Amino acid sequence: MNADSATTVRFLLASRQCELNSLRYLLQTGELVGKISQMVHMLQRERGTSNLYLCTQGRLCGEQLAQRAQDALTAQVALLHHLDQLETLTATLPQASRLLSRVASVVYALSLLPALRQQVRQLTAQDAIAFFNDTIRHLLALVFELSDAAAEPAISRALIAQFSFMQGKELAGQERAAGVAALAAGQFDEHSQHTLLDLIERQDRCFATFAEFCDAAHRQRWLDLTPDSEFERLRRIACTRRTRQAADEAESLRWFSVATQRIDGMKQLEDELQTSLMDLCRARIAVQEQANNEQRADISSLMGQQIQDEGGYAVFMPHAGHEQGEWLANDEGVTPQLSRSLLSLVQQQARRLQALDHELTTLRVTLNERKAIDRAKSLLMQHRALSEEEAYKTLRRMAMNQNKKLVEIATAMLAVADILQESP
Amino acid sequence: MNADSATTVRFLLASRQCELNSLRYLLQTGELVGKISQMVHMLQRERGTSNLYLCTQGRLCGEQLAQRAQDALTAQVALLHHLDQLETLTATLPQASRLLSRVASVVYALSLLPALRQQVRQLTAQDAIAFFNDTIRHLLALVFELSDAAAEPAISRALIAQFSFMQGKELAGQERAAGVAALAAGQFDEHSQHTLLDLIERQDRCFATFAEFCDAAHRQRWLDLTPDSEFERLRRIACTRRTRQAADEAESLRWFSVATQRIDGMKQLEDELQTSLMDLCRARIAVQEQANNEQRADISSLMGQQIQDEGGYAVFMPHAGHEQGEWLANDEGVTPQLSRSLLSLVQQQARRLQALDHELTTLRVTLNERKAIDRAKSLLMQHRALSEEEAYKTLRRMAMNQNKKLVEIATAMLAVADILQESP
Repeated sequence: MNADSATTVRFLLASRQCELNSLRYLLQTGELVGKISQMVHMLQRERGTSNLYLCTQGRLCGEQLAQRAQDALTAQVALLHHLDQLETLTATLPQASRLLSRVASVVYALSLLPALRQQVRQLTAQDAIAFFNDTIRHLLALVFELSDAAAEPAISRALIAQFSFMQGKELAGQERAAGVAALAAGQFDEHSQHTLLDLIERQDRCFATFAEFCDAAHRQRWLDLTPDSEFERLRRIACTRRTRQAADEAESLRWFSVATQRIDGMKQLEDELQTSLMDLCRARIAVQEQANNEQRADISSLMGQQIQDEGGYAVFMPHAGHEQGEWLANDEGVTPQLSRSLLSLVQQQARRLQALDHELTTLRVTLNERKAIDRAKSLLMQHRALSEEEAYKTLRRMAMNQNKKLVEIATAMLAVADILQESP
Repeated sequence: MNADSATTVRFLLASRQCELNSLRYLLQTGELVGKISQMVHMLQRERGTSNLYLCTQGRLCGEQLAQRAQDALTAQVALLHHLDQLETLTATLPQASRLLSRVASVVYALSLLPALRQQVRQLTAQDAIAFFNDTIRHLLALVFELSDAAAEPAISRALIAQFSFMQGKELAGQERAAGVAALAAGQFDEHSQHTLLDLIERQDRCFATFAEFCDAAHRQRWLDLTPDSEFERLRRIACTRRTRQAADEAESLRWFSVATQRIDGMKQLEDELQTSLMDLCRARIAVQEQANNEQRADISSLMGQQIQDEGGYAVFMPHAGHEQGEWLANDEGVTPQLSRSLLSLVQQQARRLQALDHELTTLRVTLNERKAIDRAKSLLMQHRALSEEEAYKTLRRMAMNQNKKLVEIATAMLAVADILQESP
């Protein structure tokens, strides 16, 4: 083998090693998503309990508040520990700045929780909910960022499915809180019913995306999670009743309990998604390790030399009986067979990566559309001081009026973002 | 400052440090593009000389062949040296597998050159050209891959401009070779004229893309590079003359000389693009370093602590007079002012990255379209055994027949790639 062939092989193996590194990185990502899922769930419980407490003027759940805060804190410690590991992992990567910026937002949002908990008994239910919603929104944005960066199609699909599911579950949590407020106040005005209908509709869309990207087994599991008939009955009451009634604490509590049951069912499925994701990562890593070893063995026998793997570098070792460097001296000794085999290996790798890239591009189109909508939404939230719901409705109304797709409106809005930012 | 605020700051600074890493990586990338540009130019010269030699049955340029090979080899040594550095730089990155795979293809293609040179005197001009074309195609594919990965809009634009320019220059080199062959043979058949017209048309498109993405100064420089009138005259002859004439060696040589002048002018502009790109990278790095230092100083004074930068990590040092760890103990001591300042820093960074991301997404759409067309083209080349030119024409014909954009046809073709690969 001559020096050029050795270099070709070295870069070929480095390319495959990078794929393996990428899968190992995704395994870490998957673990982090698990920690975020747990943190979000605990904040959702704390939000629910705080809300029930505030909506009933402190008559319910007062004694559970401390426990909820404690559970959230435990999840937070685990999450922050994992984020520290992430920093070590990504500090040298050139393209992790957005991810780390998201983490900074999350950590900042979490740092405000102690102050919130101190004064939660003096807040309105609405303010407390808004606070928790905001914190959870930052956590979900981090999950989105993580799923955006995945470079393996199957894992990327699983991450998108999981992110969509987490988003749907969060909207279910917001629905629970809004329902408690409405039932407890006996108020069924147009505004709160609109909010509820909107939350239900957005949930449906999230779960539809989830169903589109998850595997068949999880899709079935989701279909089997049929909502409780009592939940459906209360949902219908909250969405359609127009008369003002006396506050009904018992009904609020019933709603809270069935909605919680539903959300806990979701959490169970979310945990299963998480386990599958990790299994998928581990399986891909095993396959890739096996393939890399086989390729190294093939190349070894092809070239009559041993190749040692040293963390991404291929080191060529002369076989026993060869003097060190002997093969390097034999600079013209590339047989046509060796050259053809090398060519086929190089082409194989290039084609494999091209196919992966094509799959990823298709996936990314979906993701980019969602991103454009999210960005247009937060643009409206910032510069028109709208709530997330109002911003979304504004976009949807514009799309309907112009008979265009939501993503077209979002893209158009981003294209004129500069003007939007200048106006008052 | 409490521990959570410290963590927020740490991730914020890590995010900014990543941006800086990313810019430094782009500086390396820019240097590599320069080496590739040089290698491509040398191969273009060697191709031109070999072609003139072969087209004149060895009467011209025979004595220059060795020198051309030597010059190419010098460029190759510099390139391979830089590629070694690239490997060190990217070996730990998770997403460099495609880049490294491209490098493997380049190194493999270069490894075939010695054998080509040994037998070049026995080859047909057509075969020799095809060989050089193929090697240069791999080198340009690597430049494309490098410009695809750039995560800074201004630098990304400069890289796209430079890549388009290099591609146009390569087509100019192919035009020179095709013209020499046609003039030397006295053959002006339909096929060779089609080839010439196609090369001219594709050049124009490349330079249009270049002009779209480069800055105003370089656009002007390009406009000032008006082709020689003698070049235009010979081009017209080669493209329109239909009669078969006696081979005219003098005319071939004149064409070769004016076409070479034109290409050398392009190389000069390409070198200027390269210098600007490096200047741009260095300027961005300086700006980012300055901004990071200022932000660190701001945060320091905000928190009453010194921050030391240790390669991407922010390390908090107590001010003189503070005991180590004292600030950590003061866990509840976040003033509302500090909290608001932190919030604004976190939001600023998030918005800045979002704006960058939006610009990059827009750029990437252009790049992805080009990528889809290139991929569809190589699909056709592989599975229908077409030349690059034939593949491109096939795509264009399909687009024209269906009154669709080229990118739509390319995307449709990629969507049915599996079927295409199964058919004979």
